[in-house]
Amino acid sequence: MAKATRPEAPALTDEEVRALDAHWRAANYLAAGQIYLMSNPLLTEPLAPEHIKPRLLGHWGTSPGLNLVYTHLNRVIRARDLNAICVWGPGHGGPAVLAGSWLDGSYGEIYPDVPRDASGMERLFRQFSFPGGVPSHVAPQTPGSLHEGGELGYSLAHAYGAAFDNPDLLVACVIGDGEAETGPLAASWHSTAFLDPVHDGAVLPILHLNGYKIANPTVLSRLPDAELDALLRGFGHEPVHVGGHDPGTVHRALARAFDDTLDRIALAQRAAREGNVPERVRWPVIVLRTPKGWTGPAEVDGVPVEGTWRAHQVPLPAVRENPAHLRQLERWLRSYRPEELFDGDGRPVPEVLGCVPEGPRRLGANPHANGGLLTRDLPLPPLDTFAVRVERPGATLHEPTRVLGDLLARVMHDTGTRRCFRLVGPDETASNRLDAVFDVTGKAWQAGRLPTDEHLERHGRVMEVLSEHLCQGWLEGYLLTGRHGLFSCYEAFAHIVDSMVNQHIKWLRTARELPWRAPVPSLNYLLTSHVWRQDHNGFSHQDPGFVDHVLNKSPEVVRVYLPPDANTLLSVADHVLRSRDYVNVVVAGKQPCFDWLTMDEARAHCARGAGIWEWAGTERDGAPDVVLACAGDVPTQEVLAAAQLLRRYLPDLAVRVVNVVDMTRLMPHEEHPHGMTDFEYDGLFTTDRPVIFAYHGYPWLVHRLAYRRTGHRNLHVRGYKESGTTTTPFDMVVRNDLDRYRLVMDVIDRVPGLAVRSASVRQAMADARSRHRVWITEHGTDMPEVSGWAWGG
Amino acid sequence: MAKATRPEAPALTDEEVRALDAHWRAANYLAAGQIYLMSNPLLTEPLAPEHIKPRLLGHWGTSPGLNLVYTHLNRVIRARDLNAICVWGPGHGGPAVLAGSWLDGSYGEIYPDVPRDASGMERLFRQFSFPGGVPSHVAPQTPGSLHEGGELGYSLAHAYGAAFDNPDLLVACVIGDGEAETGPLAASWHSTAFLDPVHDGAVLPILHLNGYKIANPTVLSRLPDAELDALLRGFGHEPVHVGGHDPGTVHRALARAFDDTLDRIALAQRAAREGNVPERVRWPVIVLRTPKGWTGPAEVDGVPVEGTWRAHQVPLPAVRENPAHLRQLERWLRSYRPEELFDGDGRPVPEVLGCVPEGPRRLGANPHANGGLLTRDLPLPPLDTFAVRVERPGATLHEPTRVLGDLLARVMHDTGTRRCFRLVGPDETASNRLDAVFDVTGKAWQAGRLPTDEHLERHGRVMEVLSEHLCQGWLEGYLLTGRHGLFSCYEAFAHIVDSMVNQHIKWLRTARELPWRAPVPSLNYLLTSHVWRQDHNGFSHQDPGFVDHVLNKSPEVVRVYLPPDANTLLSVADHVLRSRDYVNVVVAGKQPCFDWLTMDEARAHCARGAGIWEWAGTERDGAPDVVLACAGDVPTQEVLAAAQLLRRYLPDLAVRVVNVVDMTRLMPHEEHPHGMTDFEYDGLFTTDRPVIFAYHGYPWLVHRLAYRRTGHRNLHVRGYKESGTTTTPFDMVVRNDLDRYRLVMDVIDRVPGLAVRSASVRQAMADARSRHRVWITEHGTDMPEVSGWAWGG
Repeated sequence: MAKATRPEAPALTDEEVRALDAHWRAANYLAAGQIYLMSNPLLTEPLAPEHIKPRLLGHWGTSPGLNLVYTHLNRVIRARDLNAICVWGPGHGGPAVLAGSWLDGSYGEIYPDVPRDASGMERLFRQFSFPGGVPSHVAPQTPGSLHEGGELGYSLAHAYGAAFDNPDLLVACVIGDGEAETGPLAASWHSTAFLDPVHDGAVLPILHLNGYKIANPTVLSRLPDAELDALLRGFGHEPVHVGGHDPGTVHRALARAFDDTLDRIALAQRAAREGNVPERVRWPVIVLRTPKGWTGPAEVDGVPVEGTWRAHQVPLPAVRENPAHLRQLERWLRSYRPEELFDGDGRPVPEVLGCVPEGPRRLGANPHANGGLLTRDLPLPPLDTFAVRVERPGATLHEPTRVLGDLLARVMHDTGTRRCFRLVGPDETASNRLDAVFDVTGKAWQAGRLPTDEHLERHGRVMEVLSEHLCQGWLEGYLLTGRHGLFSCYEAFAHIVDSMVNQHIKWLRTARELPWRAPVPSLNYLLTSHVWRQDHNGFSHQDPGFVDHVLNKSPEVVRVYLPPDANTLLSVADHVLRSRDYVNVVVAGKQPCFDWLTMDEARAHCARGAGIWEWAGTERDGAPDVVLACAGDVPTQEVLAAAQLLRRYLPDLAVRVVNVVDMTRLMPHEEHPHGMTDFEYDGLFTTDRPVIFAYHGYPWLVHRLAYRRTGHRNLHVRGYKESGTTTTPFDMVVRNDLDRYRLVMDVIDRVPGLAVRSASVRQAMADARSRHRVWITEHGTDMPEVSGWAWGG
Repeated sequence: MAKATRPEAPALTDEEVRALDAHWRAANYLAAGQIYLMSNPLLTEPLAPEHIKPRLLGHWGTSPGLNLVYTHLNRVIRARDLNAICVWGPGHGGPAVLAGSWLDGSYGEIYPDVPRDASGMERLFRQFSFPGGVPSHVAPQTPGSLHEGGELGYSLAHAYGAAFDNPDLLVACVIGDGEAETGPLAASWHSTAFLDPVHDGAVLPILHLNGYKIANPTVLSRLPDAELDALLRGFGHEPVHVGGHDPGTVHRALARAFDDTLDRIALAQRAAREGNVPERVRWPVIVLRTPKGWTGPAEVDGVPVEGTWRAHQVPLPAVRENPAHLRQLERWLRSYRPEELFDGDGRPVPEVLGCVPEGPRRLGANPHANGGLLTRDLPLPPLDTFAVRVERPGATLHEPTRVLGDLLARVMHDTGTRRCFRLVGPDETASNRLDAVFDVTGKAWQAGRLPTDEHLERHGRVMEVLSEHLCQGWLEGYLLTGRHGLFSCYEAFAHIVDSMVNQHIKWLRTARELPWRAPVPSLNYLLTSHVWRQDHNGFSHQDPGFVDHVLNKSPEVVRVYLPPDANTLLSVADHVLRSRDYVNVVVAGKQPCFDWLTMDEARAHCARGAGIWEWAGTERDGAPDVVLACAGDVPTQEVLAAAQLLRRYLPDLAVRVVNVVDMTRLMPHEEHPHGMTDFEYDGLFTTDRPVIFAYHGYPWLVHRLAYRRTGHRNLHVRGYKESGTTTTPFDMVVRNDLDRYRLVMDVIDRVPGLAVRSASVRQAMADARSRHRVWITEHGTDMPEVSGWAWGG
């Protein structure tokens, strides 16, 4: 970047330093107060044991550093009228961010019972980590936050997600040095290769090296300076180093660092937006070294605490019982000189608030951190344009994800100006057959390019990186700031983000209970390249358990769909892309799949979530002998093939075929909003007939969902039972007893009286399975009777 | 490192280059042959469609690079008599490693039906990605491997795990540039801060930049050279860059790079072992840039293929149908001049085998990659030394993990010389109260140290890093090379490694079926800081679902234990540390917990896995009115408190208390080797009495395990239903309806006839719950009647 053109920002005056320090001291006082005090918030009387909370819970260590950043962000936001939010990676330092938002007044606006005065301060202190109060971490309850700091590793990815397509937004991101050891964070640094200086906002990472984790030094804090500097440069950054123990010195240096980095960012953006684009911007990063638990007790019981891991949680643990600790706490609290910071009514004095910005510029009030406020509906086209034509069921084949790709391309096109939709995936958009989107937009890419590359674009809105963590983190940040998206992923590897989706579901579940949080677009997964069709790969790529994982979580939030063909996938996609505050998991294949339903039928079927496919069954009077149920594209095909075999070999048997699109329909309606009543369930599955259920994933999931139903004893589920390798598609279903022949055998075994009567049919089925085994070993492909099968043929 | 003392290795002679190239060409020929051919392996006749496999599956793109490394590792192993294995990160390039081990003869020794001749070659080709054959990736079936290359990201962590405590071992590790984008891999580079040059072996990472993933360029390959160099230096490495397209040039440069890096490693190790220890060794890394699909078709149908992403899988896709493609394939295969490489019987000529080492030095035969061969039993002390004294149940309290810590310290002590045991955890060993181990060994740490640090040791065997991925990856590598270990982890964050444990379970499941693979020590998790006691944290730290995740996997491999007190934890720990080829999940609290069983009772109880606690119940004639079942420490406490309340308020009710330690005992014995027969299950739980089951985790898991049991309709499970925040311990159980009062209410509601008769007792329970809510909001602590509760009191 052109250093010569950048004027130096003026140094802080002594008065400015004093004012910043006053804000910082106030925030530190409030942070410590939250951990310790349940009354006497202004220390108007000598501290006594009854002022102290009975249980001391929270994380002091990181709080002074977070407060410092909050103070200085206030200054630059105000000085530059910045539109900025901050992602607080070490958000377990909840007291800090709560202090900051109480000081900037946003807290009291959202929670009028916690006003910016003595009564509010007392409540702020008491409620922290207190039953019925607020959690100890930065959480949905915290104004200005879109990131829970509990499970570490995702802050930087969230920050980038928030910055994408928000060209005027600055996203500061505090990264703890503990967090920096995690894999997801380590990978997130490479996001510099994906950030578009023209259409995206800026991310300003602040790597906070306070030296220690819970009990250990951190790796990054103990690297030699030159090594750390090289590392950050290797990640595409220009590091600016700030550090120290003397507050005045650090205030001046940090202010200079913020001015410097923000100038660089502004210059880079201006250059890029004026068309003067270097190959890749080297974005600045601030490395901030301050002591852990800075300004807290230097020693406790003769052992160093400030600046060590011992400051991580509660530095003085026995305050209520130990008078010496109590005195030390009082000295510590009074060291901030609260009487200078707050007036007699507990209101911060003007000097403390001098740096605080106003209105929605405040970190606690910026609407980007409550992204639902900014959400506009995604423009979704009429589905009929994209529907495949179905003259009769099972007569034609389409690749469902390819059909969906056309729809997504239209959505990409229609959001080309507003830029409020992104597709993320680990290098699998084309592999998952969604490549129609590349006709409209490219893959975001700021790194080097070669002539043979395809679809790379500096301004593209498809995000591909070989890291499910980054895909998930980026998308979460994008959604939480109010935009829309879809994550397409190999089914098995969705487990890589199990823990991340946990946290996102927890966030949504809590946010839904807060009236001031506006609903945000749902997190939508398209899981494809699924367990049954891993032709180029094998056992390692076969795992349908992400659905099980998600279904353990809050039913208010989770939804699972298994559309059986192209048109049902379109209908489901339309539904999930319109929805808010959910995590929707859609499992659909990319391989050619029979078209079963017209678009209208698909819409009606998806609206019900589960239904009888009358055309596929043979019951006449509403009293089937057996129910063949299915969920998922491959199981649906096998069930229909089994129904056809039954029609041929056992024409008198009354067979009902039920297809389930929405798995949560199987749950009791008391447990999930989509759950069927028993009346509905029994109407589909009967209470007394055998139900052979061919399910896409682990069979016991269906039992888990349906165990309370009257007919549960008659429910027999087939699914993936962890038997796989590199083999043919039909061999996969045979290995797992999900194939048409096995399903027919199941019917014969379960329908009373059929076993003897139909022994020869059963034998024919067993023979077909044997024939299959011999055939594939000889030919390496599936038997023509299977690979050439079609419904009604 | 002292460059001056390092003599330059002599450059390769032309003859040596020719020989290496012959081996490499042979390997490339064999790799391509595996993807395409089912007969005519030596091209003794013109290639015809019937020689081609009907389904072309596999990954060519990475194979020539892997072959190149195999060839050159052969050379240096032979030249230096190295004890070396290689972890193949891009192991989806299975054809390469299969080719290498077929050439070094190990393949034919393990699989005598695939000998190193024409018949073996034909079988090698045909079986690849063929039904009934071998999978397309490097897998347990592949000689010399301990790493499946399917799910990318774990190679480098595995390599370090293999190197720990193997001072004479060199672990080469090929990292694909796609894999390098993943979070776990990005974090793994920091392993340099943990590798002890004295007691550990060396890891030589080979970052293979072939430029592309499935459809995109890779980030690392497109960084400017200086940036990539800075990045690797930031990770503590000295990079050595090799690259090119001309085989001769690359052979010479790569040979020089290997000689150079191995010299540096040897020097560093010697210096460290002679006591001449620098603060931290800067280990070398090789950066190898070669074209993707090198030596394959340069263009196909006028489009560039070699050197682009199009070479990723099968570069010529339509060989059977398209005569031009068939001719191009034949030209490609003949370009390796197979007639020079193999004799008329298909045996590699001496020149090809000139670089291949002998016996167990071969990469396909090194026993470290079949670690069970090297495993020795862990010395485990008698448990009675560590047992807590229990005079009567529930009279004393211990922190179970602290008691376990003493046992682990002894194991650490007793393995001090042999160094075959490691404890890994994300900075939580002390937090999880296992810190007794620090009396015996320290935390491995090679980075900078300060005087205030505690327990850091250059030679420590406790591994702490804030990355569950690294902990898991290191431990997997350590176990797969035949050593022992334990991973202690916050329960909720075990989900971070969901996908990794999937792959490890798949590996073990497959390896168990291979007679030549010796059993390896089990992967043992201690999940603590569990859902019920997250006092300093909150909702983000509350998730008991790892057990659910693991129980979806192969029952041959997975085991889940929930010991209810300190002595049962000792017994379980002893069991899992002796076991082989399992993944054992042990969930146990770190907070003070009542001691229920003496050591002898604990042993007997754990041996049964589930049993009646007669002392806790009130049944007399073996016919209880109700069964109170429990699994987990907190549920056990609540069940016993409920039993005590029932004893007081409903003294005539016959209550049976059943405790379950081994969750898989609940499964049908046909489905899990530990599963109870119906006879056993019914004996414990009855077939017709209400069972109120207080379970540690998600309640539906118990239904999922027990749905086939006769008495399932009477089973009523309480557990964590995703309701949490920062609150008191008892409030957590109340929020989730797992508390003693609720359990008594459940009994009253479920035992026929009790509801009316015991309405006042029920009301008293409801009142206690209301009292609780008021109390905690006022006091911030649990009511004395709860916090001071003791059994028999």
